[in-house]
Amino acid sequence: MYVTISEIHCQEAGVQQLADAFRSRLHAVDSFDGFLGLEVLQDRRRPDRFLMITRWDSRSTFLRYMKSDQHRASHARIPRDPAKPRAAGLTEYDVVAT
Amino acid sequence: MYVTISEIHCQEAGVQQLADAFRSRLHAVDSFDGFLGLEVLQDRRRPDRFLMITRWDSRSTFLRYMKSDQHRASHARIPRDPAKPRAAGLTEYDVVAT
Repeated sequence: MYVTISEIHCQEAGVQQLADAFRSRLHAVDSFDGFLGLEVLQDRRRPDRFLMITRWDSRSTFLRYMKSDQHRASHARIPRDPAKPRAAGLTEYDVVAT
Repeated sequence: MYVTISEIHCQEAGVQQLADAFRSRLHAVDSFDGFLGLEVLQDRRRPDRFLMITRWDSRSTFLRYMKSDQHRASHARIPRDPAKPRAAGLTEYDVVAT
C-alpha cells in the first residue's frame, strides 16, 4: 500500500468552515480504481492544522488520480478565505506494519 | 476516534532492523480495551523516518494504555543501537472526515 499525508493549514477564522468542507466532501475519489481510503485528521493542539491521509494500491495510481477529472472536481470545491487551505507539504509512505 | 502520530527516527544503519522490529511487533496492545488499530509508515524519501499511527476510542484509553503492562512489555523489546528509535514528537488528532 502507498500512503500520502498532506499537511494543510488555514486561518484561525476559517477552521470550522474548512472542517465542514472536509465533512461534506464530494466523495468523487471513492470509486477511483486503486483508491483505498482517505482520512482527514485535525490537530488537537493546533486546530488550524489538518492532515489528509490517502491510501492507494500504488504510487502510479495516485499520480493517475492527480491528473483525473475526479481530482479537478474535488479541488474546484476548495473554500476561499478565511477557510482556504494552504498546503504545508506532502509526504509519501509505505506501510511497514499494522 | 482519538488518533496519535509518533514520529520516530533512527540511524541509517539501523533502518532495516527497526522496520523488522515493527513487523514482528508483540501485538500486546491488540486486545487492549478501546484500542482501535495501529499502523507503522516508513517515509519513502527518508527511510530513517517512521510514523506510528495509533487509534483509540478516547484519549483517556490511550493514557490508560501508556501506564499498562502491555505498554511496558512492548517497550522492553525496543532495539538498541543502531536501530534504537528516537522519538521526534507525538501529535494528537480527531478524525474530521473519512
